[in-house]
Amino acid sequence: MAITEIEQLIGLLSKLPSFGPRSARRAVLYLMTKKESHFIPLIATMQQVAEHVQTCPVCGNLDTQSPCSICTNPERHAEQICVVEDVADLWALERAGAFKGTYHVLGGVLSALDGIGPEELKINELIQRITDTHVTEVILALPATVEGQTTAHYITDKLLPLQVQISALSRGVPIGGELDYLDDGTLQMAFKARRTV
Amino acid sequence: MAITEIEQLIGLLSKLPSFGPRSARRAVLYLMTKKESHFIPLIATMQQVAEHVQTCPVCGNLDTQSPCSICTNPERHAEQICVVEDVADLWALERAGAFKGTYHVLGGVLSALDGIGPEELKINELIQRITDTHVTEVILALPATVEGQTTAHYITDKLLPLQVQISALSRGVPIGGELDYLDDGTLQMAFKARRTV
Repeated sequence: MAITEIEQLIGLLSKLPSFGPRSARRAVLYLMTKKESHFIPLIATMQQVAEHVQTCPVCGNLDTQSPCSICTNPERHAEQICVVEDVADLWALERAGAFKGTYHVLGGVLSALDGIGPEELKINELIQRITDTHVTEVILALPATVEGQTTAHYITDKLLPLQVQISALSRGVPIGGELDYLDDGTLQMAFKARRTV
Repeated sequence: MAITEIEQLIGLLSKLPSFGPRSARRAVLYLMTKKESHFIPLIATMQQVAEHVQTCPVCGNLDTQSPCSICTNPERHAEQICVVEDVADLWALERAGAFKGTYHVLGGVLSALDGIGPEELKINELIQRITDTHVTEVILALPATVEGQTTAHYITDKLLPLQVQISALSRGVPIGGELDYLDDGTLQMAFKARRTV
């Protein structure tokens, strides 16, 4: 080979998450065989995304318009803010279609190990948003990990003086979950939070 | 989300081999966070590859020059032709650095199930190359599958009248291979082809 451009492309692709040198090579060879139908459109779309998509200054979502289409949609309930760790979580909630309010992307969770403190997250921006606008409920949709829950506690403490309702996603047995395969923590939680039917 | 450009990009990426919708989403989010350092260079490199890289008319390799850098390299032995299934196999042999001759990419192997007959492969081009130039040896580096070996037999039959030496890669225990984990076919083959030390 010794073709610098192809090697460069394989090198750049192999740094993507869930990609390695082997899958990057396969992807490049695939793209070269589908030049017109896949490679050229892919480049054009990437260019459009790189040029037009930006982070929403209000919520932190990615969109071609600023503020984003969720923040500017009059049918969404702006008085409800769902706090998520990152844009991937926002997208997951949007796919589920479970929420009709607005979002706030923190950009991470508190982690002493990774050196992420409250200043690295958009917590002050959240407080500012609640102070400036009419917000009735903040829903903490943070991961059920130690870091996620530490962050949720921290935010709850910070929001207490603001007199908004604070809620969190419920915990329990996921849909389709077999009890046999669930971890002890989830089962204990599901038992403690059992509800009358 | 509902951002058509991002959705389009995720759709195009998820059609790549070893990519699905989930990893495509992760890749797009990663690229958006590394816009200057990774996304823009990736687009530029892709564009260069799409514009400049083409299939070598002689051997079928991919390169920015035509004929490719292997075919035009005066230090490579043009009288030796190594026949491979596809460009990925050519690259693998080049990485191993085991061969200093030239290549011939078939573009597949014979497969009745997939409807690939001799006309779909570059077999006539190989015969033409051998007839037109001074070739002393053809090395069949085809996969050790039923289809690969059928193709090797077919090519051997076709090349017999041309009076060139035809060889194939040796079979046996791979380097680092534990006998315990090898399949019966490989062990039988390694026994049959044993050599005095």
